Formats: sequence, C-alpha cells, structure tokens
Amino acid sequence: MRTDGRANHELRRVEIIPHFVKHPEGSVLISMGETKVICTASIEDRVPPFLRGQGKGWITAEYAMLPRATEQRNIRESSKGKVSGRTMEIQRLIGRSLRAVIDLSKIGERTIWIDCDVIQADGGTRTASITGAFVALALAMEKAMKAGKMKEWPIVDFLAAISVGVMKEQGELLDLCYIEDAAAEVDMNVVMTGEHQLIELQGTGEEATFSRTQLDKLLDLAEGGIDSLIMKQREILGEIAARIGQKEKEE
Amino acid sequence: MRTDGRANHELRRVEIIPHFVKHPEGSVLISMGETKVICTASIEDRVPPFLRGQGKGWITAEYAMLPRATEQRNIRESSKGKVSGRTMEIQRLIGRSLRAVIDLSKIGERTIWIDCDVIQADGGTRTASITGAFVALALAMEKAMKAGKMKEWPIVDFLAAISVGVMKEQGELLDLCYIEDAAAEVDMNVVMTGEHQLIELQGTGEEATFSRTQLDKLLDLAEGGIDSLIMKQREILGEIAARIGQKEKEE
Amino acid sequence: MRTDGRANHELRRVEIIPHFVKHPEGSVLISMGETKVICTASIEDRVPPFLRGQGKGWITAEYAMLPRATEQRNIRESSKGKVSGRTMEIQRLIGRSLRAVIDLSKIGERTIWIDCDVIQADGGTRTASITGAFVALALAMEKAMKAGKMKEWPIVDFLAAISVGVMKEQGELLDLCYIEDAAAEVDMNVVMTGEHQLIELQGTGEEATFSRTQLDKLLDLAEGGIDSLIMKQREILGEIAARIGQKEKEE
Amino acid sequence: MRTDGRANHELRRVEIIPHFVKHPEGSVLISMGETKVICTASIEDRVPPFLRGQGKGWITAEYAMLPRATEQRNIRESSKGKVSGRTMEIQRLIGRSLRAVIDLSKIGERTIWIDCDVIQADGGTRTASITGAFVALALAMEKAMKAGKMKEWPIVDFLAAISVGVMKEQGELLDLCYIEDAAAEVDMNVVMTGEHQLIELQGTGEEATFSRTQLDKLLDLAEGGIDSLIMKQREILGEIAARIGQKEKEE
Amino acid sequence: MRTDGRANHELRRVEIIPHFVKHPEGSVLISMGETKVICTASIEDRVPPFLRGQGKGWITAEYAMLPRATEQRNIRESSKGKVSGRTMEIQRLIGRSLRAVIDLSKIGERTIWIDCDVIQADGGTRTASITGAFVALALAMEKAMKAGKMKEWPIVDFLAAISVGVMKEQGELLDLCYIEDAAAEVDMNVVMTGEHQLIELQGTGEEATFSRTQLDKLLDLAEGGIDSLIMKQREILGEIAARIGQKEKEE
Amino acid sequence: MRTDGRANHELRRVEIIPHFVKHPEGSVLISMGETKVICTASIEDRVPPFLRGQGKGWITAEYAMLPRATEQRNIRESSKGKVSGRTMEIQRLIGRSLRAVIDLSKIGERTIWIDCDVIQADGGTRTASITGAFVALALAMEKAMKAGKMKEWPIVDFLAAISVGVMKEQGELLDLCYIEDAAAEVDMNVVMTGEHQLIELQGTGEEATFSRTQLDKLLDLAEGGIDSLIMKQREILGEIAARIGQKEKEE
Repeated sequence: MRTDGRANHELRRVEIIPHFVKHPEGSVLISMGETKVICTASIEDRVPPFLRGQGKGWITAEYAMLPRATEQRNIRESSKGKVSGRTMEIQRLIGRSLRAVIDLSKIGERTIWIDCDVIQADGGTRTASITGAFVALALAMEKAMKAGKMKEWPIVDFLAAISVGVMKEQGELLDLCYIEDAAAEVDMNVVMTGEHQLIELQGTGEEATFSRTQLDKLLDLAEGGIDSLIMKQREILGEIAARIGQKEKEE
Repeated sequence: MRTDGRANHELRRVEIIPHFVKHPEGSVLISMGETKVICTASIEDRVPPFLRGQGKGWITAEYAMLPRATEQRNIRESSKGKVSGRTMEIQRLIGRSLRAVIDLSKIGERTIWIDCDVIQADGGTRTASITGAFVALALAMEKAMKAGKMKEWPIVDFLAAISVGVMKEQGELLDLCYIEDAAAEVDMNVVMTGEHQLIELQGTGEEATFSRTQLDKLLDLAEGGIDSLIMKQREILGEIAARIGQKEKEE
Repeated sequence: MRTDGRANHELRRVEIIPHFVKHPEGSVLISMGETKVICTASIEDRVPPFLRGQGKGWITAEYAMLPRATEQRNIRESSKGKVSGRTMEIQRLIGRSLRAVIDLSKIGERTIWIDCDVIQADGGTRTASITGAFVALALAMEKAMKAGKMKEWPIVDFLAAISVGVMKEQGELLDLCYIEDAAAEVDMNVVMTGEHQLIELQGTGEEATFSRTQLDKLLDLAEGGIDSLIMKQREILGEIAARIGQKEKEE
Repeated sequence: MRTDGRANHELRRVEIIPHFVKHPEGSVLISMGETKVICTASIEDRVPPFLRGQGKGWITAEYAMLPRATEQRNIRESSKGKVSGRTMEIQRLIGRSLRAVIDLSKIGERTIWIDCDVIQADGGTRTASITGAFVALALAMEKAMKAGKMKEWPIVDFLAAISVGVMKEQGELLDLCYIEDAAAEVDMNVVMTGEHQLIELQGTGEEATFSRTQLDKLLDLAEGGIDSLIMKQREILGEIAARIGQKEKEE
Repeated sequence: MRTDGRANHELRRVEIIPHFVKHPEGSVLISMGETKVICTASIEDRVPPFLRGQGKGWITAEYAMLPRATEQRNIRESSKGKVSGRTMEIQRLIGRSLRAVIDLSKIGERTIWIDCDVIQADGGTRTASITGAFVALALAMEKAMKAGKMKEWPIVDFLAAISVGVMKEQGELLDLCYIEDAAAEVDMNVVMTGEHQLIELQGTGEEATFSRTQLDKLLDLAEGGIDSLIMKQREILGEIAARIGQKEKEE
Repeated sequence: MRTDGRANHELRRVEIIPHFVKHPEGSVLISMGETKVICTASIEDRVPPFLRGQGKGWITAEYAMLPRATEQRNIRESSKGKVSGRTMEIQRLIGRSLRAVIDLSKIGERTIWIDCDVIQADGGTRTASITGAFVALALAMEKAMKAGKMKEWPIVDFLAAISVGVMKEQGELLDLCYIEDAAAEVDMNVVMTGEHQLIELQGTGEEATFSRTQLDKLLDLAEGGIDSLIMKQREILGEIAARIGQKEKEE
C-alpha cells in the first residue's frame, strides 16, 4: 500500500484553476495532490537576438519555489545570487517540452515567457509545472488569437507530464509524492502528447539501475496518467480544446 | 471620484485567509483589493552570528514578486543575480516593523523568517505584506507556544500598515491602488500599532513637496485605515487576538 | 546633557569646502562635526534608456563609505561583490531628494551623477550627503550654464537634510552623532526646502514606537536645523544662491 | 550514408590514453572521433557537510569546455561569472552516473572530484566524459587501494555512456557527431552498465516527438555501443578490470 | 620641457598629512602633485585561515578610486559587482611591497589592512599609495607598540615607490603625471628600500620595447626619487623614523 | 645542484606541438619540462567598442588552469563565479606582451583572442603561455594571410618569455620549476624580443629584496634562455619564421 492509500497506477487528485492571476495573458493554479504551482504565460512582442528577423517566435520557461513551499525553508535563489543546477535543469525541460507542440512560425516574432512558481511542494513539481503551463499557454494563445495577433492557431498537440518510479517493495508507481520520490530507486519523468508520442524521457537510477523490462512497465503507467491529465486539460480548456483536438483527428 | 469609486478615506476590500500553505509555521494569503500576497512565518532554531549566546531571537523578512504579478512582466531577481534596491528597502522595512512589536528575548535563540511573496500587485504591496505578515507571525507564535517552545507570549501589540498619498485633484487619499500610486504627488507608508503609535513613517514627495498640514491630514487618514485593518486581524486571529489585546488593556 | 555638550536643538559645527576635488563639475567636502563626506556632481551628456528622446534629464546618486570611515573597518562593497541594502536605501534617498528641487526638463538630455563618499563617519552621513550634494549640484549647474549647456537655471529651491531623534533620558534631539544615533529610540531623517516644505520624511522606531506629539516636536527641531544649513549653503554659494533664492521670493 | 561514412550502428574511433596528466590520482584523455576530453579523478580526504560523520564518501563532477574547443569560440564561464544551465545539467549527470556503480560506504569519508575538460568538441562530449571518467575513477581507486586508503574495492560494475538519435532520412543512429547532433530530430543519451542495466536515460524530441517503437530501436543501438566501449575500458584497465569483472561474474 | 615645467629627474611636490582620518590606527593623505590618496592602516586581531596558529601576522591591501577621481567618471566597482584586473594588480603589489619590510613574526596573529583610496588621480596613484601606506603602517605600528600589543618594533627598513618612464622626445623621466603616463612608450614602477635594494620592479613597453641601457637610466632616476620620498617620510615620522633608521645603521 | 640536476643557466626540455587542436586558427601545446599549456589564437571579425571605426585590431588574452593541473586540486574559477587577481594579472601580461610585437593597424578591425589553458603546472606557466601563444598567433596570422584577410604581415618581431630567480644557496637560476619557484627569494619574469629588447620585466622580492647587481645577472641568464626559446619557435614555424625574421635583418 502507498502512503496515501492510492493504487500503484492511480494519480493524485488533479485540479486546474484557470485565470488564477489577472495580469498574465494566460494563467492557472494547478494542484496535483498537495503540490501546487502557479503557471503563467506572458507574451512579449520581441524575440531573443538569435531569432531576430526570422519571422518566428520563441518559448522560454522559468521555474522557482517559494522559500517555504517545502518542509524546510529554502534560501531564495535571488538572495544566493544564482540559480541552482536543479532549477536550470527544470526550466530548460519545461521550455523544450512546450516548444515541441507549438508551431513557432505561427506566433510571429514574439517570446512567450512561461513562469512556474511552486507555492507548495509535495513531489512532482516539474511535471505539474509542464501540465499546468500547457493550459496557461493555450489560454494565452486564445487571447492572442482573439486580439488578432496571430492568424493561425499554433498549438499542434496536447501535452502533459507525469512522474513514475520504482520502489523496492511496491514496484512500479505512478505520480510519486515527496515521500515516495525520496525513497524511490528509479525516478522517471515522462512528457507525452495525447497520442502517446514521447517528447522527453528522463529516467535516473538513484544509486541503482533498471532494466528495459522495468522501463516498459513505467511507460505503460505513464501513458495511463497522461491520458487522465489530458482529459482534465480538455475539460478546463472547453472550446479551446477543440482547436487542439482537431489536429489529432486529422492525422 | 477615485478610479474605483471609493471615498478618499475608504480602504479597498481586505481579505486574510489563514493557513494558506501547509508547511510554514504560520501563513496567510492577504488581499487588499487586487493586491494579493502570500505571507509565511518560518521558525528556525538558531540566530544569526551577531546574536549568538545572547538568549534572544531575531526576525528577518524577505519580499519578492512573481514575475507576472504586475502588468508588465518583471525579470526575476534570481535570474538577474541580484536583489534590487526597492526589494531590499521593502524587506528591511518589514523586518524592522515586526521587530517593534515583539519581545525578542521571549522567543529564545530562534530566527523567524518572514516571507512575503506578491502573487498579484495593484499598489500597496509593502503595506499589505506587513499587515499580512503580522498575522502569519501570530499564528506561528501560537504554534510554538503550543509546542512548548516558548513560555511567554512574545507579541506585545497589534501592528498594521497602510499607504496614504496626495493627488493634485483629489487631495489626500487612503490606500492607493496602482493607478493612484503612479500619479500621486506624495506617497506615504505608515506603520502603526493599535493605539496609533507610529513605528515607521516614510513619506516621499515624488518630484514634489508637502506641507506639515498635509502630513497631518495624511496621518488622520492612516489612523482610520489602521483601525479597520487591526479589526480584520483580530477577527482572523480569534482567541489568539486576546493574548495580544491583553497587553493593550494592561497599559 | 548631550555627549558633546550641545543643547538639544543645536547642530554640530558645519563646514562646506567647495571645489574640494578638481575633476568633477561640482564638488564639496562637507563636515557635520566629525562626519565628513566628499560630494561630487558629474554631468554626462546622455540619459538612461527609459528617458531617451524625451528632452529631459536625470539625477542619480551613489553613496559609499571608505572601509575605515568607521570605528570598525567595513568590508568594501566592491570586494563583497554587492551593494548592501543600507547603501541602496541611502542612494535612492539622495537621488529622489535632489530630483524634487530641480526642473529636469531644463537640463536637457543629461544625467547628473551625484557621488557621496564618506571619508569619516560619526552619524548623519546620509543627511550630510544630501546637504553637501545640493551644493555640489548647484556648482555643477553654474558651470554648465557658463559653458552654455543650458539656457535656464534649473534648480527651483534650496534643499537640506538633517536627522532628529528621541532618546529616553534627553527627549527630542537635533543632529544625532553616532553614539546618540545608536542609542536613540526613534530616528528620523528629514529632507526639507528653504520654505519648510517636506520632501522626504523617514521615521523609525528602533524596537520602539512614537506618538504624533513627538513627531511634531521632531519636525520643529528639524526646521531649525534646516534653516541653519541652508544659511550655510547660501554663504558658500554666494552669487549662485541668488539664482535659487530668486525663485523663493517670486512665489 | 552518414557524413563520415559510418554505418548507423557504428561507433567513431575510440581511444583512451591513461595517466594523461601527472598530478591527479587518476586521469585519461578520451577521444571519440574528433571529440577529446581530459578526465581526472581527484581524491580529497573529507566529505561535504551533509555527509559528515556518516562514514561514507561522495563523488561529484565538474565539466567545462576550453573556449576554442568548438568551431566558434565560447566565452569562458569564469569570465561570465556563472556556469550555464547546460554545464550544470551535464555535471550533475556525470556525478549521478558514477555514483550508481560505486559503493560509497567503501571509500570512507572522502570526496572524489571528477573533472571533465573538453579540449576539442565534435558531439557526444557528455557521454565521452562519462566513459572516460569511469576509467579515471578506476585508476584513482586502484591507487588508493595500493596506498592502503581503502580495504575493499568499491566499484561494483562497469559503466559507459553513448548518444543515439533519430534523423529524418537516416533513421536511428549510434554515436552522433556534431553535424548529426545538430540536425537530429530525437537525441538520446544512454548510460548503462556492462549487463545492459540502465542508469540514466535522457531522450529529447527536438521540436519533435518519438514513439516507443523508436525508443526500443535506439536502446538496441545503444547496447551495442556500450558493449564496445566497455571492451575498450577493460583493455585499458588491464588487471584492474578483473576486480570490476569479478563482481559481474558472481552475480 | 615637461608639461608642468619640471626637469626630467624632478619629483612633483610631495605632501604627506598624517592622522588625516580619525578612526584608523594609522592614516595619511599623500599628495604627489595633483594625485591625492588617503592611506589607512587598520589592525585586526586575527589572521586569515592559512596562517592560523603560526604565531605570525599578515598584511593585505585594498585600493580603489572615487568615481570622479579621474577626468571621466568611472563606474564604481561595487556597482559593477566585481573588482577590475587593474585594481587587483595594484592591491597585490601594495601588499607584497609592504610585507617585504616588516617582520611578520613580530606583529603576532594580527592582520594589518591597508586601504588606499584615491580621491584625485593624476598619474602615479599606485606608487603614491605605497609611499603613503608605508607611513600609515609605521603610525599604526607605533600606536600598537604604545598599547603594548607588540614587544619588538617590526618594520625593518624604509620603503617608497616611484614611477619612471620613457617618452620619445624627452627621454627618461621621473614621476610621470597622467598626461606623460598616457603618452609614454615605457612605463616602470620601482619599489625600493632606503638602501636602494629593489623590492618590486615592473616595467612595461606600451606597444614598444626598451633596452637594458634604458633600464639602467630609469633605475638611476628612480633611486634619486626614492631618496627624496624617504626623506619626506622621515620628516613626517619624526621620532618613529629613528626606530626604522636604527636597523639600517646596524647592518 | 638544482632539484632536477640542471645547471643554473639551463632551460628545461622545451617542446612545441603545432596545430594541437583543430578548430582554432592557430594552436600549440607547449611543454617546458612538466609544465604543459594549450595555447590557441582565435580571430573574431570585430573589435571591442573602444576601437570601433579606427581601422585597427586588438589582441586580448585569457588564461586558466584545469582544476587538477596542480598538485592540489584548485576550485574552478567558473564555480567561484570570479576570476582571481593572479589570473587577471597573467592574462593582462600575456595580452600586453603580444601587442608589443604586432602592428595592430595591419590586422584590420579584428580581435585576436589568445587562450592559454594550463593542463599541467610545474612552475613558469605564464612565461610558457607567452612563448606558446606567440607561435599560435603566428600560425593564425599565416592562415589569415592565406585566406586573404590581410595584405601585409603584421608580426614585427619574435617574442618569448622566461622566468629567472634567486635562491639563497644556489644563486641566480634560469627557468624555475615549481619547487624552486616556491623557495626562491626573488622571482622575475622577463619578456624579450629576439634582439634582447625588453617588453615586460616583473621582478618581486618575496619578503626579500635584491640589488641592481643581482638584477643584471638575472637579465643575463634570461637573455640566454630567450635565445633558445626563439630558436625553438623558428624551428616550429619553419617558413613562417622567415617573415618575422626578415624584419629583424632589415633594421
């Protein structure tokens, strides 16, 4: 039995509150159990220097935790004067993931800034960030379409992320909470589209190793989780989901 | 008439949600109109080097804004690698204000970290931070008392903060929202106790000056605002308020 | 009795040596008792990005202390690699204060850099910096007028700053030296024009509070000190003072 | 056909020169085609604070490129004053990988610093670093054993790393050189033991996605490459290899 | 003829004002023509980690310029967040030079901090800093002797520094002012004892070269300058000079 | 006798391997005994802001050591986030030295970046860097000439550098290895042209002094070493040497 009574293939309770903050073009508060992340999408009407004049846009992401999002207070990265390796790894992952499902040539010379701020952490903050950021991004794109900033809908597929892992006693698990994550022998983050195409796969043996058979079991679990998350995203996005869905049906 | 229809002496709608995040010893989400700040109080069982061995504690504060708390996205201070002068000024103000109403010798060799994270900004974020942080502090002290960490209640008085200002057309105003703040000729932040004793007074003529007569009018307005804010704090704190109130009556 | 035998309303000996260093457009060495600050005003023929193309100028200030300006040697901020919160607070205060008495549209697209370097500290370094910087600024403006860089005199009023405070035994005091400042319960910095209009007012209860009655006494003391300081400024500025004085008479 | 004429499942020429620099306890120069990395292992007789008093050791890694290891000169990270996200990601990966095949309780309270400095880059620098660092680590452990610093041999398994990827025209490829890496749709780094157990798996769709079928093909390719690399490591390590091999046979 | 009418072997007017600031154990204001430097010596009762427990002391130096010490305003190194290469070079030179004439085992486990702050620059700031710092150091040692902190006088020789250089038209010159320094083909700083023993010699061809014959002429000039500077130091130090002189005679 | 059996005037074995890395326009691996440095010259088609529009180029140098180039591992300067004073001193020295033998007006508006990375250190790394960098520079210039980027050959003279020093027992020594360098009383770096013209001369008494007679002996030793080094450079440069040599003969 898992610490919170879930079955191995069961997600924690997922909640996505759209328009959680008023200024950004798109924003949500996503909760995966006790993990809570504010995800916002901000549109800036210019691109970084390496893209200027190419007629296409860019998506970049930043990730942070409030100092007391965790059991022990963390020192703010602004006070330390530098961003940790873990933070950098996560924000690069979020950015790459979102760029995989958007046609950057359709957003014009614009940068979309994704900000994921964890206000409460209980494992799986990076995957919750990606799943929530996708919704914030879709809301922002809808707003930009309505404002006439873009002619064509740029998001080409759904996208969600989930963690899976292996614990000695319990075997393969979906959606690890913090206690499980700390004890797991193998820890894997999976970013997938609605059609189970992989975008990112990051598996780590924590002072341990894993076999290809285990890898397969973990991917099966992840597919189930991704399906539930995308169902939730569709529900929140309502009519906007149809625009994304359309693409899936065509293919 | 003010942009949001308020009278000059009227506060925006105040809401304080206690226990907003689960890990910190004390936490609230305070809203003053559209300004929303998560305030947490974290207890650490040691003091900074300059206080070691003196048997007394310390309170320090940190303040930050989510990048998209504002109309225009701000660059994260962690990305810039340094904290701005404005941020430093505000966190020093919050720390000093709270230290004025707590008997540091009663909390033992502990540091209380106050974190104020603005998730949505519409003027008055520093005063909302102080007003909210006071409640988070009181909740944390209650928890520490119950856990037997302290023998005597350390908070000696109520404390709240409010902005006041002068606009050419409208005269003296209480609780400026962002539009008013940007246009005001004089901008003043007032930190006061329940008995209208001043703790901090910071008035600035923005490329303008102000007379002592205007100062008096501003302080009258501030007193009214402080009264309402402390009433709200009492309501949220319930029985805990009585502990603080006691002191007031004794004197 | 005060440690140095002064009456409560008495300033320390004020000395302002103009043209103390040769390269800057304006410079003074100001002494307030044992506090000594080199203030310089440098004119740069361009403005920061946020002001470009608006036909107006900017004033910004920097403040620092020599490492051994104080009883204990301070680590240089250049060695630490960052500027402290206290320094930032002070340099923002100096800049804001000077901007309140200058018509920035009359100086053209220029930045005036004010540098205040404390070579010996004995309390009141920020107020001495403002009082001295005003003279350095006036000297620089005179030089720029003579060089034909500006057509109209831009300084619209006199400006000086002084500290006041409350000590338990001695009550309200003007112009605190370091020993008094360290022991004071209330510490207030007042920046005023020649006509007693307030520009900045920063009062702090140091783990203490103060009443509005005390505030009034402190402001009365400050007005007296400001009068003496401006008299001294007029004396040093000689004919240049007349240009500033003129404005006062007209109104 | 690949740009350098290799078959899809073919490695570039691998060379490992042991004892390349004289001061470190272990060192190699590894070449994978034109990619050349100096890998050193340094033993320090203490552990980071979080491990003190636990009787076990630690392995940490740092990675850097000479400024002109690449076609275009890169700005030194020491000049920029901060380490990039890419560098952090890589050094965390190297450290985690090596920790998975060493029994840290057998090395005592010591830190092993792995330094991987790329002197010439042509794709696959992170995987070459891991493969080379493993040999440097083994050499350092041998030296420490001979010096009587450890009683039991701590390395429990072989370890090597290789990149695989998908290119539109050519399909799945082993060991991508820079030109291939830049053009690949999917890029995956695989860290494996001698028995094909996975330690790290990092797959990324570069603005693209990949299926589980493709994943399987990539892992098959990787297994072949890992076998060749470990054969090379065995050859260089000579008798030392037997110590590591022993473990494999026992299980 | 030189720009200021001096002969090639002539120093600028030298002035050394002792006890220029009140807090440091030793301080002077040294002027070499228009170059003015405040030099202070501060005694700290502990040594850096690498010297702890060895019963000997340390001397370290820091150097800075006020932003407007120069014709063009320089950005503060504290604002830039890092110390320039030039500054580091100079402070290392000052520290090394002073350590050459002091017996560090006689000052006990103490650090002497030398601070050289240039308030006005007109060439030769590093050599003026060394010459002035020597006097500040001697004053501080005298104070420490009187306070009973040391039993034996630690300074074993006089020390001064001067610049020499080569200009195409004028040949070899002593004590270059800024205009000469900027135009010189060869620039050399010489640090010497009273008996013409060399401590530091730093000669640079500025996009030019120099012969050993020129080197000899430059050293002859430097010896003359050093003699005059040490005479000035003796005059300022009065009786303290005798303590230093004594050593010279004995040998 | 010296630790490695050399005579006082004897160089260590010198080896210069040209084209050691493939990407840079010029590169060598230079060995002076056990000291090994990779020197590269990279041509960038623009100049720093202070030179724009003047039709001339610039040479700048960077220097670093691999962390385990030394007996004890050094912390990477990129990890520390700042470059040490020693590093800055060395890179400024390398840049200045090379600029003395090149006619910058002949290379057009280009910057040549010299990178010296010490992979193994045993004393004399800065002089080996200069001697090696000269060859890398000449190789890069040859390549640029062949590519038609320049019309005239810009290098006007040969250049090499060597260390000399004084040890109590052994007297004056050429080319100090690390053990000698650490024990030497006087340490001097000499940068010279093929005709024994001085470019840089940096002599330091390490808590000691030296006489002009000693200086002369050291310069005699240096001249001998420089002759051997330039002979080696000529050998490696082959036909390119003739271009540089030509100039010498003409004069």
